[in-house]
Amino acid sequence: MAEDPFGWLDAAREQRADAGLVRRLRPRAADDPLLDLAGNDYLGLARDPRVTTAAGDAARRWGAGATGSRLVTGSTGLHAELEAELAAFCGFESALVLSSGYAANLAAVTALAPRQARVVSDADNHASLIDGCRLARAETVVVPHADPGATAKALAGHPGPALAVTDAVFSVDGDAAPLGELHGVCRRAGAALLVDDAHGLGVLGRGGRGTLDAAGLAGREDVVATVTLSKSFGSQGGAVLAPARVVEHLVNTARTFIFDTGLAPAAAGAALAALRVLRAEPERAERVRGIALALHRGLTSAGLSAARPDAAVVSVRAPSPQAALRWAADCRAAGLAVGCFRPPSVPDGVSRLRLTARADLTDAQVTRALRTIVSLAPQGA
Amino acid sequence: MAEDPFGWLDAAREQRADAGLVRRLRPRAADDPLLDLAGNDYLGLARDPRVTTAAGDAARRWGAGATGSRLVTGSTGLHAELEAELAAFCGFESALVLSSGYAANLAAVTALAPRQARVVSDADNHASLIDGCRLARAETVVVPHADPGATAKALAGHPGPALAVTDAVFSVDGDAAPLGELHGVCRRAGAALLVDDAHGLGVLGRGGRGTLDAAGLAGREDVVATVTLSKSFGSQGGAVLAPARVVEHLVNTARTFIFDTGLAPAAAGAALAALRVLRAEPERAERVRGIALALHRGLTSAGLSAARPDAAVVSVRAPSPQAALRWAADCRAAGLAVGCFRPPSVPDGVSRLRLTARADLTDAQVTRALRTIVSLAPQGA
Repeated sequence: MAEDPFGWLDAAREQRADAGLVRRLRPRAADDPLLDLAGNDYLGLARDPRVTTAAGDAARRWGAGATGSRLVTGSTGLHAELEAELAAFCGFESALVLSSGYAANLAAVTALAPRQARVVSDADNHASLIDGCRLARAETVVVPHADPGATAKALAGHPGPALAVTDAVFSVDGDAAPLGELHGVCRRAGAALLVDDAHGLGVLGRGGRGTLDAAGLAGREDVVATVTLSKSFGSQGGAVLAPARVVEHLVNTARTFIFDTGLAPAAAGAALAALRVLRAEPERAERVRGIALALHRGLTSAGLSAARPDAAVVSVRAPSPQAALRWAADCRAAGLAVGCFRPPSVPDGVSRLRLTARADLTDAQVTRALRTIVSLAPQGA
Repeated sequence: MAEDPFGWLDAAREQRADAGLVRRLRPRAADDPLLDLAGNDYLGLARDPRVTTAAGDAARRWGAGATGSRLVTGSTGLHAELEAELAAFCGFESALVLSSGYAANLAAVTALAPRQARVVSDADNHASLIDGCRLARAETVVVPHADPGATAKALAGHPGPALAVTDAVFSVDGDAAPLGELHGVCRRAGAALLVDDAHGLGVLGRGGRGTLDAAGLAGREDVVATVTLSKSFGSQGGAVLAPARVVEHLVNTARTFIFDTGLAPAAAGAALAALRVLRAEPERAERVRGIALALHRGLTSAGLSAARPDAAVVSVRAPSPQAALRWAADCRAAGLAVGCFRPPSVPDGVSRLRLTARADLTDAQVTRALRTIVSLAPQGA
């Protein structure tokens, strides 16, 4: 009989401290003066008055909350409008909006991977896809990162439903999956392809229509995409884009859809407004890609080790978790917010600074950010 | 090799149709004239101008989205303010806000149930607690509904960390868990108690402080509660209420916290405003309980089979899924929205109408609702 049922937490805390892996919340102020290269507001729409006004308008018109499951009282005309425009924009037959991208991934993977199925999952997939695989009743096979050959092998010979699951753009290093090859592999195996386009929507494809659009795979009958409304669309929520029969299946079987309160109208309204801004200003997608490439050029020409970005995320290696933490803190002290990714948030155990391009950064801000990061780089970076 | 990787969905759809278990989305209009006894807006705050205005104000001040994980850019001063007031109101040392109640339950269960732990879970627990158990590395033992003796037996003799997990108020039948007894069982076994108070916050306890407050268990060092901001608080999101060291552990280890975008400022602002309304108008909690009891009295005195409500949910049995669906549709045609719960959303396979009391219903509306439900009851109900 233990005296203290949470006594084991203290040992876990000491281990974190010894490893330099303590995480703390640092609430920001509304007038935070930092130059932000840490957030995922890729198009600079989270604070766009058209988007924030739409959030307030939706709350007033529809209520501050959805008041229930989407299957009970939680579906409004606003949700339906957002789903129709999102599907049309991304080139899919149907869309289903959930309260987060995490929930969308759990829904899609679990509903499409029943007991007799096999799921083949990229080793570097996002936590929400991994948790979807863990929750699903299917057998999961994890394959090496971005490896269509290994995917083909893992899909081969399975008699039941099969599904390959991958991020479109990987959130840590910002590299894109070989979607065309993966789709070919899936077709030959009779498998479906599920792609998380959280970091591609708004950035890649024609006018930001996403990585599936760029790959010519949007709307295919054997392709399902998930997206988030909290990055390029500056809001909150997630969605599954798919053939109508897949969406109907999710409505009837996906636990994180059925047993969750619908997305708040304010978030749905903001996302819809952001989508319309992007449709009217498609050059935002091009701008964010250009800034990411400029960041990469500046970093590598200064001798730092940065992966070439396929979308908006630029990752720079640090020699240790402690060095990464210090580097990020020094940048912050110099007025620049950057992400600091350490285990267990990195697939390979290598700590990194994670920079995100934003369409509304000026060239002068990009120059200033580069100068700060390079000048504060630790030994060995 | 399959020609059609989603062909298996068609068979699943036919099975649902044959069993009368097809679910369809029915988006509501902003000026929907139905009398709503289906939503979970227990205190009638989702459309309160103080709450909806706060949503819009927060979006304008902080942005339409949080722009990143709570650990990167997604924590604002508004999140910190909400967490402080929520913890103080409910009587806990600390609070952590997540993007949904579902995410809060996944976070709490998985982070507090490591590999060497044992989790004891009530058979009727909410899907999000069940999924938390499935995702956790611990061994899970499912015990009969509301059974402290079985819980004691399942906890006995386990050498590692142990955790009993239960809804405070069960969402289908509206009955409360025997929290006092469960806590005694946990104490004797050296186990912690995790309670999902989604349906108790705002309804039970002093001034709606929740089921843990009512049971005298709020703030105990061995008790963790989860709540949702999408029911009584009329908004979206969830929170974990716990000793500070538990919250610190979640910040460092809970995947649905670390790898999710922070709750949108509009939702945080709306929830905070709702909390303040409830603090100023504690009679709302009493009113909703009174209406639930009035609904129960009216239903049972008409010969229908309804469980006595411990909070705001009143459940009425239907003889079959088809009869439940027809009954709910007839109510809707008569101007009344009620919930219709069928498998797999019910723990015992029995379909039900699910009515929810709301603090802002008038006595005349309650009378009208009862008359409608009773007059349209199917044979055998």
